[in-house]
Amino acid sequence: MEKITLGPMPYLSVMPALLVGANVKGKPNYMTAAWASPACMVPPMACVAVNRERYTLKGIEENRTFSLNVPSVHQLVETDHCGLVSGAREDKSGVFTSFYGALKTAPLAEECPVNIECRLFKTVDCGSHRLCIGEIVEIHIDRACLTDGKPDSAKINPMLYAHFAYFDLGNEVGKAFSAGKMYKEK
Amino acid sequence: MEKITLGPMPYLSVMPALLVGANVKGKPNYMTAAWASPACMVPPMACVAVNRERYTLKGIEENRTFSLNVPSVHQLVETDHCGLVSGAREDKSGVFTSFYGALKTAPLAEECPVNIECRLFKTVDCGSHRLCIGEIVEIHIDRACLTDGKPDSAKINPMLYAHFAYFDLGNEVGKAFSAGKMYKEK
Repeated sequence: MEKITLGPMPYLSVMPALLVGANVKGKPNYMTAAWASPACMVPPMACVAVNRERYTLKGIEENRTFSLNVPSVHQLVETDHCGLVSGAREDKSGVFTSFYGALKTAPLAEECPVNIECRLFKTVDCGSHRLCIGEIVEIHIDRACLTDGKPDSAKINPMLYAHFAYFDLGNEVGKAFSAGKMYKEK
Repeated sequence: MEKITLGPMPYLSVMPALLVGANVKGKPNYMTAAWASPACMVPPMACVAVNRERYTLKGIEENRTFSLNVPSVHQLVETDHCGLVSGAREDKSGVFTSFYGALKTAPLAEECPVNIECRLFKTVDCGSHRLCIGEIVEIHIDRACLTDGKPDSAKINPMLYAHFAYFDLGNEVGKAFSAGKMYKEK
């Protein structure tokens, strides 16, 4: 394998395409994001990187709540639309049907199979982006996306993002905490 | 769609399976992780959540460097092995062939098609996990995984993780910053 260098760039791998929800000026707003991850197990937390100029950030910092919504491939057009248009220029409150959960001020997109409510824990200024770390307060999921009471990725049918393109999920290739038992020292 | 609540838990969506590399006691060590994301565009940064008890964390904090390595599905067994076994109990320096780049102290796994060198920028204590935010200093990629000079996700063939299972990437379902142009207000 011949390796070459690309120089520093904000690239990791394929990431989940998400919608960050926040109330801004009293209205639900959704921003497309793919730079998000769980951040802690106990207490459960997640983080998302948001450009400091983004309209959504105002709502996150004002209410100290936000949501992470997992669209399925069926929300391709709406999801990408929320990344093309700023809430500062266009009212995006009607793109999804919003509902509220435990936090009251973090809008959740009904059409997305998974909605995660977060209470802002900390923000970290990294440069162009502010990393918003939130404690996960509640998770809402479409009952049809569960198998044995647990989220089933194949049923959720999430959209993945990499390099200006969206992908769907492929096939299971192995079990975690199990496949490695086959490892033999070289 | 009928939504039910799952309670708070550290769940987001399908995430990339990665290997966090760090030198610990002068030896390369790799830890499996799926809680990682780009964190900033300018300067380019990435973050990864690491349990505070993990052996790898000692190396990250000692050297203030780490790597994020993107395995392909061909590294399934080795990748899962690094999540089953702690470097505190077993020397994992031979699981991958290590090389070093600009940072000298962040081991890079030759067998993985993508290797990202990070200089530790900040850590955030979230609870059980410490979020390690690093500035991306260099990216190494298998020349065979490029198309028109850019990383090609289909060629990288990354492993994705969700709920105790690994998946491969599916098909492209749409173009980002483009598909949303079809959006029509309801």
